[in-house]
Amino acid sequence: MRHIYAERVNYMKNSAIRELLKVAEQSHVISFAGGLPAPELFPLSEIRESYAQVLGAGDPSVLQYGTTEGYLPLREELSAQMHSKGIQTDADNIFLTNGSQQGLDLIAKLFINPDDLVLLQNPSYLGAIQTFRSYQANFEAIPTNEAGIDDIALELTIKLNRPKIIYLAPTYQNPTGTTLTIEERKTVLRIASKYGVPVIEDDPYGELRYDGPALPPIRSFSTEDEVIYLGTFSKTLAPGLRLGWVVAGKSLIAKLLAAKQGTDLHTSTLLQRATHYYLTHFNANEHIETIRQSYKERRDIMLAELKENFSNQAIWTEPTGGMFIWLTLPEQYDTVNLLPSALAGNVAYVPGAHFFVDGGSYSSMRLNFSNPTPLQIKQGIKLLANIL
Amino acid sequence: MRHIYAERVNYMKNSAIRELLKVAEQSHVISFAGGLPAPELFPLSEIRESYAQVLGAGDPSVLQYGTTEGYLPLREELSAQMHSKGIQTDADNIFLTNGSQQGLDLIAKLFINPDDLVLLQNPSYLGAIQTFRSYQANFEAIPTNEAGIDDIALELTIKLNRPKIIYLAPTYQNPTGTTLTIEERKTVLRIASKYGVPVIEDDPYGELRYDGPALPPIRSFSTEDEVIYLGTFSKTLAPGLRLGWVVAGKSLIAKLLAAKQGTDLHTSTLLQRATHYYLTHFNANEHIETIRQSYKERRDIMLAELKENFSNQAIWTEPTGGMFIWLTLPEQYDTVNLLPSALAGNVAYVPGAHFFVDGGSYSSMRLNFSNPTPLQIKQGIKLLANIL
Repeated sequence: MRHIYAERVNYMKNSAIRELLKVAEQSHVISFAGGLPAPELFPLSEIRESYAQVLGAGDPSVLQYGTTEGYLPLREELSAQMHSKGIQTDADNIFLTNGSQQGLDLIAKLFINPDDLVLLQNPSYLGAIQTFRSYQANFEAIPTNEAGIDDIALELTIKLNRPKIIYLAPTYQNPTGTTLTIEERKTVLRIASKYGVPVIEDDPYGELRYDGPALPPIRSFSTEDEVIYLGTFSKTLAPGLRLGWVVAGKSLIAKLLAAKQGTDLHTSTLLQRATHYYLTHFNANEHIETIRQSYKERRDIMLAELKENFSNQAIWTEPTGGMFIWLTLPEQYDTVNLLPSALAGNVAYVPGAHFFVDGGSYSSMRLNFSNPTPLQIKQGIKLLANIL
Repeated sequence: MRHIYAERVNYMKNSAIRELLKVAEQSHVISFAGGLPAPELFPLSEIRESYAQVLGAGDPSVLQYGTTEGYLPLREELSAQMHSKGIQTDADNIFLTNGSQQGLDLIAKLFINPDDLVLLQNPSYLGAIQTFRSYQANFEAIPTNEAGIDDIALELTIKLNRPKIIYLAPTYQNPTGTTLTIEERKTVLRIASKYGVPVIEDDPYGELRYDGPALPPIRSFSTEDEVIYLGTFSKTLAPGLRLGWVVAGKSLIAKLLAAKQGTDLHTSTLLQRATHYYLTHFNANEHIETIRQSYKERRDIMLAELKENFSNQAIWTEPTGGMFIWLTLPEQYDTVNLLPSALAGNVAYVPGAHFFVDGGSYSSMRLNFSNPTPLQIKQGIKLLANIL
């Protein structure tokens, strides 16, 4: 039977990098393409112990239907964590999701009519672009100049084009690894607030800080729930759990609740109970410090290799945290066309063009340094240099 | 900040029975209102062992990002289970979801444009109505007469109104507990197929059979992927896991994949691995048989109590499986208005009106027999009779 789909299906594409990742995951390829954490750092035994404890306590409610907003003690714990980042909130401002990707989807579902405008960093996280596109959003880039976000152009853009929502990842952004300054954070909030445009602050990488100051989230400057903050356990604990959270005003939480009820009822009770056990019985901060040290070493090695192999032919970001470096070759290079050669040479990256909503730069690429080992980084960057 | 939401938000309502369930869950209330399995039957120790084994094998990939369609060995296992029900399929026809509710949501996202028509049983599962409504669907009832589904009226309805999709739960349906005959199943498929309308076959209760024959799923008669089958572990294993699956044609699976990528990337890797361990190392059929025996006893007690207390004033369904009995009082009764008295008398039900897309019957109610204990059922039905 040939199906007649809804109009929005025309805007849903399988991730362009999915096929690429399949090739890149072959064992002989050194892959800088994925966005995966280092699996050897997952706290397997602590998570095992957490599940064993909550399933061994003789309380069957850990396997029963749960509330749509999430397990209260976990929301309280997350609320306390948010306080430590300067975000004033209580448990009723926290809403549990299946990873922050579901937070994005529910927010898009609540806000985006077909042809509504989303204002975002360009390049941006591909998964966010996909989600907004599936609700038939249009896009425009947050204007920038040499100094960063161009506040005059931003205000003009908002005034003229009335975006429905602003999406950004201010800290160690995917794909570029760059971070907005405090001034830029305050500027975005001030202008968005003036025109009543909510800001989605996506913060999957904030904990992965290697040097430079810990900058306060935009939500910490927000006084009227203008900012919807998205957090996740995918980078600090493990992505295979699928657990994230939204911080938002209570009226929006009520809407998220109605949306999630129809979407999947609630997030796994057992997962929330086990994660709560982990957070309250193990030293999560110590574990994050271990991740930080390991990823910092990998970042440093990648930067050193880039310096040694690419100094005369490319420029790149020097992120103070996160999982990605953004490399830009001279304009005549096309990283989409170069990719088959790279794969043939057993090294993979993601062409930068995939992260732009308007075509964008064809000479850039995203390089992940969290998943490959230090040795793979050394070998892989040399391979890449030889191929290019 | 006051938010301006998308138009679809006007169609999203918090579940009408959510507030009711909060009251009904107070410990002094005997609740026939929920749709919960009996928690004392959850296989806690087997699930504990399954998580311990997959987390204890030293394989960190159980916590890594996974594929959107789901863990292949689990899809293979489910494919084999589907074969045993007469559904010809292979692993590539199986798509894992966060409970069957997410299957419904993804299908609605793929098919429903605003004002598209969904043809469904009336009354129907409230969660399905909510989901379709959130995509701004309109509804029409599958026509019935004294003999069941009215095939002439059904064909006329489809011909005239061109529904986008047909939704039904043919086996031990929520809320009525009724089951479509083989002839009705074939009739629906024949007519739907003739007019190219896909059928969603929602089957959460099929395994909970107490007497009567095991009827083949509609999908087992389907030759051209006309039927999208939804399965779940919520009633046979535990709902707090949040794991379900879709059986569909491969072209639809590809669309589901694109939709789920933007929705939440994939279903928990750990959950899928642990569930696969459970299915391949424990006797799931034996466990389901235990559930069957227990629920059958509760159903029999509820039917006996209804006979003793309601014979002269009401009629009710006598389901051969599932979790619900549908009670209809004389027309002058309004179960919505009577509910506060029932709650004050420490017994709860769900008014039937909530399950109709067009107002429907105000003299009916849904009674759950899987969650209350046999003693509670005896006491509760007597309480209810006294109040009414």
